[in-house]
Amino acid sequence: MPRPAIDPASTRIAWIGTGVMGSSMCGRLMDAGFAATVQNRSRAKTDALVARGAKFAATPREAAADAGVIFTMVGHPHDVHEVILGPEGVLAGCREGAILVDMTTSKPSLAERIAAVASERGVTSIDAPVSGGDVGARNGTLSIMIGGDKEAVDALEPCWQAMGKTWILQGGPGAGQHTKMMNQTLVAGGMMSICEALLYAHRAGLDLNRALESVASGAAGSWALSNLGPRIIRGDFAPGFFVEHFLKDLAIVLEESRRMNLALPGVALAEQLYRAAAGQGHSRDGTQSLILTLAQLSGFAWKVEN
Amino acid sequence: MPRPAIDPASTRIAWIGTGVMGSSMCGRLMDAGFAATVQNRSRAKTDALVARGAKFAATPREAAADAGVIFTMVGHPHDVHEVILGPEGVLAGCREGAILVDMTTSKPSLAERIAAVASERGVTSIDAPVSGGDVGARNGTLSIMIGGDKEAVDALEPCWQAMGKTWILQGGPGAGQHTKMMNQTLVAGGMMSICEALLYAHRAGLDLNRALESVASGAAGSWALSNLGPRIIRGDFAPGFFVEHFLKDLAIVLEESRRMNLALPGVALAEQLYRAAAGQGHSRDGTQSLILTLAQLSGFAWKVEN
Repeated sequence: MPRPAIDPASTRIAWIGTGVMGSSMCGRLMDAGFAATVQNRSRAKTDALVARGAKFAATPREAAADAGVIFTMVGHPHDVHEVILGPEGVLAGCREGAILVDMTTSKPSLAERIAAVASERGVTSIDAPVSGGDVGARNGTLSIMIGGDKEAVDALEPCWQAMGKTWILQGGPGAGQHTKMMNQTLVAGGMMSICEALLYAHRAGLDLNRALESVASGAAGSWALSNLGPRIIRGDFAPGFFVEHFLKDLAIVLEESRRMNLALPGVALAEQLYRAAAGQGHSRDGTQSLILTLAQLSGFAWKVEN
Repeated sequence: MPRPAIDPASTRIAWIGTGVMGSSMCGRLMDAGFAATVQNRSRAKTDALVARGAKFAATPREAAADAGVIFTMVGHPHDVHEVILGPEGVLAGCREGAILVDMTTSKPSLAERIAAVASERGVTSIDAPVSGGDVGARNGTLSIMIGGDKEAVDALEPCWQAMGKTWILQGGPGAGQHTKMMNQTLVAGGMMSICEALLYAHRAGLDLNRALESVASGAAGSWALSNLGPRIIRGDFAPGFFVEHFLKDLAIVLEESRRMNLALPGVALAEQLYRAAAGQGHSRDGTQSLILTLAQLSGFAWKVEN
């Protein structure tokens, strides 16, 4: 059944999970004219949005009560489970006819289950994980990968527009999450090869910036090489994306591929190396810090003179 | 000692190895005004260049005799060894003061050895492997990665200009080959992750073209994903680059990294998978055919409806 487009002027949204990404994304929806109720485990992280006029709610259930659209952007699948399906979760409090949008990178199977439970309560649930990082969230240039009901997704057009540059309905419930897992599979192999290529070049005695110039413009070129390669060379391991979050994603890829009886040796290797990186204390470093672990593996420390 | 730039009007070049890449590259030098002597193991492959005015020589030694610059573009390191260092090779016949440019992707250590032997005979040897494939060779848009003497490289400017879009001196003898090995390390991990990502998406039931659209524009994007992804989806495994040549390159990366005591687990895995691809009969398919082997690994055949 076609739905009218959501009207920012007459719709209150709820936003559960106001971390770095969530705060920026909720802020963009408020910029677009939506009234917002916000909720977060540590309340301090909602302060900035409250100062801009958002209402604070103590629980996801409360936050959802008077919202037409409820967004969730939390950490792990178990957090998604709790804020949506738990006793104080969104589905315990939201109105019939509401739309629930989980933007957390989470399990496709959980997205399917939430959609089924939501549907029994007259609620439409959409999975819509994103790619594009903190910068994309701030600037509204995310790529949003969507799974769920087409009519609801179409009605949410003003929301996608506020947050994204690309938003594509990939299929039914879980399809957004599956597309994000495809994305992370690409990122895993890409990052591993960038780190190995720079280690090779370093040990071969090449000037890394000059070598990067030769390889980045041709068939070996990638977004990650051009954007993270220079950071690795200058020893900048500040997180664009945390190793610990990437490990969560790789675990989901492997769990799903296990279910499909699909061997993915490259992802499996990358997951092991990132597991080692976490063991070496790099959980809260950026994913490009994998080079530290790969250097360590061969008994030396990554340190490049500039 | 600075050298004057090579003058196409008064310089004869020799070109050894007129395969797909070599023919196009030699043709571009002839377009730029160079007179050429050509040599190839199977003579028929020189016919087109001879029809355009090139002189045929029976051996590399003969071809090199009256050339100011000698280019080699052959298959494997043992071919490089034979056409340059062998009894009928370039160094047995070329003039003192000549410049030898090996554009084959070959071993860095062999490039160093050739440079040393050449130097004893008053010849300057440059290693200059390329990236950019048959299309780049035809259009003169190759990325040329150069190792060797700066003065000689500068003097060759008119030659680089005829063949390349980017040419960068990376260091002394062997540095061009090392940079190419860095390039192939990137290509290996990139291709493996593209194949795994498409397999995942296929098994998850996604529409592959639509999923590709979501992931190609963001942080997972790469030249290979945008250019080879669509070919894999439509089942086009025609070679841009042969599996058997890529296996040669990966063997060199692993041999060099062994010498450096550098573990490169991603390259090692990719080499094993490409080895399996060759075992399954894909030596003369393009590198994107790795997906056939990865699908086979999980017991199914890659076949996508369009």
